[in-house]
Amino acid sequence: MDIKSKIRTIPDFPKKGIMFKDITTLLQDAHAFRHVVREMLHHFDGKKITKVASAESRGFIFGSILAYELHAGFVPLRKPGKLPAKTIKMEFDTEYSTDAFEIHEDAIQPGDNVLIVDDLLATGGTSKAAVYLAEKLGGKVIGLCFLIELSFLHGRDKLKGYDILSLIKYDKEE
Amino acid sequence: MDIKSKIRTIPDFPKKGIMFKDITTLLQDAHAFRHVVREMLHHFDGKKITKVASAESRGFIFGSILAYELHAGFVPLRKPGKLPAKTIKMEFDTEYSTDAFEIHEDAIQPGDNVLIVDDLLATGGTSKAAVYLAEKLGGKVIGLCFLIELSFLHGRDKLKGYDILSLIKYDKEE
Repeated sequence: MDIKSKIRTIPDFPKKGIMFKDITTLLQDAHAFRHVVREMLHHFDGKKITKVASAESRGFIFGSILAYELHAGFVPLRKPGKLPAKTIKMEFDTEYSTDAFEIHEDAIQPGDNVLIVDDLLATGGTSKAAVYLAEKLGGKVIGLCFLIELSFLHGRDKLKGYDILSLIKYDKEE
Repeated sequence: MDIKSKIRTIPDFPKKGIMFKDITTLLQDAHAFRHVVREMLHHFDGKKITKVASAESRGFIFGSILAYELHAGFVPLRKPGKLPAKTIKMEFDTEYSTDAFEIHEDAIQPGDNVLIVDDLLATGGTSKAAVYLAEKLGGKVIGLCFLIELSFLHGRDKLKGYDILSLIKYDKEE
C-alpha cells in the first residue's frame, strides 16, 4: 500500500513556509489506518514492551493502540498542569517553539521496557524529552516508533543508540 | 475485575470541590486497560461502525483503539485552530467552562455510522457537540461509549435516544 499518498500536505500551516503533514486523511481511511498499525506491531512485537509512552495529543492515537496490542500499559505525557498526581517535567524545543511535558512519577518503574510512540519525528525535541522522562523514572527505552519522519530536520541524530522505526519519510520540505 | 478500584480520585483538581477521576492508574495497568477495551468492543462489535470520533486529548486513547478494532476510520475532534484543513465548529459548556471543538468537513460522509468515544461523560456538553458535528456532516450516530459516567451530573439527559455505554458509574461526588 502507498501509505504516503494517504497523507495530506497543507502548505503554510501552522505558519508560513511549513508544509504541514495532515494525518487525518490516513486515520479516517480504515484500511490504511489498520495497515500502518500492523506495520508498527510487526516491528515491535516480541520485544517484551511493558509500557508505551506517548505525548498528547496526536501521539495518543497510535500509542494507545500499540499498548493495547502489545499487552502493555499506556503512559500519557501531558502539557504542564494536566496530570493530576505527582509529576516530573522536561522542557524541550520543537520545530516551532519551546514546550514542556510532564509524566506521573508512578507511571514507569525500574524494570519497565518502554516504547515511545508519536505520529511525527521532526527535530526530535519531543522524543528526546520522552526518553529522558522514561529513563529518569528507571525505565529502559527499547525503541521509538513514528508514523512520519521529516528526515531533513535530523531528529534521528538526537536519538542515537535507540531502535527507531518510521513508516513514511520526507527528505525535504515538500 | 473491579475496574473502579483502578481509578484514582484526586481531590480538588483542577479546582476546589472537584473529585477528579484519574484514569492513568488504569491505563498503566496492562491487564485492566485491555479488560475495559474488550468490554467496549463487546458492546459495539457487529454494529457496522464505519467511523469512530473522539475529542482531544484523552478521548483519543480509547477512540483510536475502538476504531482500529472495529475496522473503522478514526476522526479526531480538536480545539479550534489545531486541524489544518476546512472545518466546522461547535461551542459547548463543560463541567468547568465553555469550550469549542472542530472537525474536518471531509472526515465524515453521509452513509457513515459513527461511534462517539470519550473517557468521561460529565455534563454531556462535549458529547452533545460531538453528536452535532457528526450529524451535521451527514453521519448517523450509532452510539456513545465512555469509560466513566458521573451520573450525578445527568449528562445522559442531553443524549436521549442514543445507545450509551459507560463502564464505571459514580452516583455522587466521591
